[in-house]
Amino acid sequence: MDRRVHAQRPQVVPPELEEVHAGTVTVGCDTAGVSVSTGVSAPESVFDWIDTRAEARAKAGLARQVRPRPADSTDLDLASNDYLGLARDKRVAGAAAAASLRWGAGSTGSRLVTGSTELHTELEYELANFCGTQSALVFSSGYAANLGVLTALSGPGTAIVADQHIHASLIDGTRLSKADVVVAGHCDVPKVAHALATRGKRRALVVTDSVFSVDGDLAPLAELAATCGEHGSALVVDDAHGLGVVGEGGRGAVHAAGLAKAPDVVTTVTLSKSLGAMGGAVLGPSRVIKHLVDTARTFIFDTGLAPSSAAAALAALKVLREEPDRPTRALDVAQDLAFRLKDKGFRVSSPTAAVVSVQAPSPEAAVAWAEGCRAQGVLVGCFRPPSVPDQVSRLRLTARADLTEADVERAVRVISETGASAGAVSRPR
Amino acid sequence: MDRRVHAQRPQVVPPELEEVHAGTVTVGCDTAGVSVSTGVSAPESVFDWIDTRAEARAKAGLARQVRPRPADSTDLDLASNDYLGLARDKRVAGAAAAASLRWGAGSTGSRLVTGSTELHTELEYELANFCGTQSALVFSSGYAANLGVLTALSGPGTAIVADQHIHASLIDGTRLSKADVVVAGHCDVPKVAHALATRGKRRALVVTDSVFSVDGDLAPLAELAATCGEHGSALVVDDAHGLGVVGEGGRGAVHAAGLAKAPDVVTTVTLSKSLGAMGGAVLGPSRVIKHLVDTARTFIFDTGLAPSSAAAALAALKVLREEPDRPTRALDVAQDLAFRLKDKGFRVSSPTAAVVSVQAPSPEAAVAWAEGCRAQGVLVGCFRPPSVPDQVSRLRLTARADLTEADVERAVRVISETGASAGAVSRPR
Ligand SMILES: Cc1ncc(COP(=O)(O)O)c(C=O)c1O
Ligand SMILES: Cc1ncc(COP(=O)(O)O)c(C=O)c1O
Repeated sequence: MDRRVHAQRPQVVPPELEEVHAGTVTVGCDTAGVSVSTGVSAPESVFDWIDTRAEARAKAGLARQVRPRPADSTDLDLASNDYLGLARDKRVAGAAAAASLRWGAGSTGSRLVTGSTELHTELEYELANFCGTQSALVFSSGYAANLGVLTALSGPGTAIVADQHIHASLIDGTRLSKADVVVAGHCDVPKVAHALATRGKRRALVVTDSVFSVDGDLAPLAELAATCGEHGSALVVDDAHGLGVVGEGGRGAVHAAGLAKAPDVVTTVTLSKSLGAMGGAVLGPSRVIKHLVDTARTFIFDTGLAPSSAAAALAALKVLREEPDRPTRALDVAQDLAFRLKDKGFRVSSPTAAVVSVQAPSPEAAVAWAEGCRAQGVLVGCFRPPSVPDQVSRLRLTARADLTEADVERAVRVISETGASAGAVSRPR
Repeated sequence: MDRRVHAQRPQVVPPELEEVHAGTVTVGCDTAGVSVSTGVSAPESVFDWIDTRAEARAKAGLARQVRPRPADSTDLDLASNDYLGLARDKRVAGAAAAASLRWGAGSTGSRLVTGSTELHTELEYELANFCGTQSALVFSSGYAANLGVLTALSGPGTAIVADQHIHASLIDGTRLSKADVVVAGHCDVPKVAHALATRGKRRALVVTDSVFSVDGDLAPLAELAATCGEHGSALVVDDAHGLGVVGEGGRGAVHAAGLAKAPDVVTTVTLSKSLGAMGGAVLGPSRVIKHLVDTARTFIFDTGLAPSSAAAALAALKVLREEPDRPTRALDVAQDLAFRLKDKGFRVSSPTAAVVSVQAPSPEAAVAWAEGCRAQGVLVGCFRPPSVPDQVSRLRLTARADLTEADVERAVRVISETGASAGAVSRPR
């Protein structure tokens, strides 16, 4: 992706934009920011406005649908974030099952009361060890980790300089932070430097995803860290889509950039993607982790992660140590998928992680395309405005380390056939 | 508790207050809102301020400590929220284990992509059915459910009228909501009516816990609902500590108040307390639930709950149906504990749910008391300012349906002996 396309002056986050760059995939899609003035002066029920909004969304084709999957689905999954195929790995699922029986189904309390088991501590030790940071702290989700880190590390005395494409949970963190928030383009280091140099607050945090969830592009972490250093800012990196995929043995994008031990870099990860489990964590210097224990609201006021999820993540890290080429396999599949789809004439991203983005000619075409794939048993993600930054709708495909050659062939065939009939071939060769 | 003690005029939430009424239990405790001016003009590292804050917290005795518990702990637990003793129940833990093996350790994606399994749908059906509401929607935590419901049901055109003691997650929801937020005392219906009558916005939400987490007192739900009706407001009730304990068969405080089917009442619950699992849910009219599917950010942009946790909650609901007197047993234990401690001369709340609050003479005494109990193998919660609204430190005890007569006796003995040496007996008989 051209990093200059969305260049714009640093600015305070406008609400529309915040809604827009809330990137994550939904089949059927989007953030649905439909705004309607109801014109009713004395509503019968307080929730009548909901119906008006629902109608507007339905008209705009923005209604979403929960589609539960059966345990024995034969669909080919190119939509989940189970990049390493570990969610159903016997070692991982088995560890989760054993932990439920040994520790109980839930952790029974907040982390500072009864919700910390030895499993949690072991997982924290292993996460820090694996990713090369001093310490780690486990939260109940990646979402909670992001809210916790941004609120605890900032405040009214802080400026937050955010990439335009950060994940919804980081956006909510900036909203909760009471800090001055500036959006500094997308992967635009000079713009970040300018925002830092002209900030009105002494303290500053630069916030970015490592691998952006929609397009799978990589943030310039080393450059951002250098810029932060020059301007006395800390760097917060959400490595949700980097852990398990990017870097040596899947140690993540922060490790790959040589920043795991940097005193002013903090990483958040989720246990729910490549590790096949659930939960989140913050990794960084010990003093930062201690600070979070004392002050992060989503740590203090939330029930601890279920023992089974902690055990699953631990088992997944063990698999990663034993099979250090699994991440490479996920990356290879992604590049293979991208190459073959490009070859068929589609506009495809050049994957640096497990996410492949394929452009569609229109929002309607994207939906028809994704639905066409689903009808043929291939699940793909679908993104339309306002969930994309550049008005370009796309499919989001995720590669998995356990996809076979035959899987990839089937996926490419189904995606290209349905794509051709959806008019998505834009550069025939 | 005297409902008038904290009476004050409706007001916009001041930050200190928000920090203060963030109620949940911590052994060793509190929200640690220590404010320090660093006076450093060019810090060596961007995180130097963290050390200054940490020192101040240490001096104020507000540093917190994660204390992991072993699987085979013999401590007597009066600190967890496992009110029905179901976290380790074989039926519940067994269902969790089986689900991990059948469905995998994680749900692999957000609920609208691959993160909804048939287990999630079944749980939603059962939760609605059990609690008597039209529909239900499962979130990854109770925290996420509260953030999701408040942001999706409000906005700049809304006034939120909040009880002064609502849970931290609801406070964060109001902070994210962009609504006008008014704190209307504690359980103070006339104050709520006044805030609703004088609001500057057409739409309004009244927000309250059903059972307040620190003291275990009940909100006047029926009166609040009537007031909401008069003023065209919806009512959002966090029934985290009511579900499984309060009302017929543990159907919760909203059901007990006859409000489960009310068109303008929305309930949030957590699966992490009486159900012994992890996760959260919103219960209410179907159109509200549909609206959340389309717009709640913590639903759309968060990985779905792990299958094991969904299965555990489902199994717990089944136990509740089969053993409808379990909730009564928890309540009986709470009242027994309270009665016996009162009899020993302590100032104790009159429990209407599983939470028992015991006043301490000072913050230091509360800490010494809780630590004394821990040293003798009895775990209790401890609360000090600024986490209490009235400057009164206390122990928070939670009753469990599976505590035996001998457990209760041991607890009362240890708590009174340590309490006496901590100088906590205030009304000797
Ligand atoms: C970049 C990013 N950060 C954070 C999250 C949230 O993590 P979790 O789903 O574990 O709450 C997600 C996805 O859900 C994500 O894509
Ligand atoms: C009243 C109340 N609401 C919500 C929550 C959050 O629920 P969860 O821990 O499942 O995220 C809690 C406690 O954690 C609570 O006490």
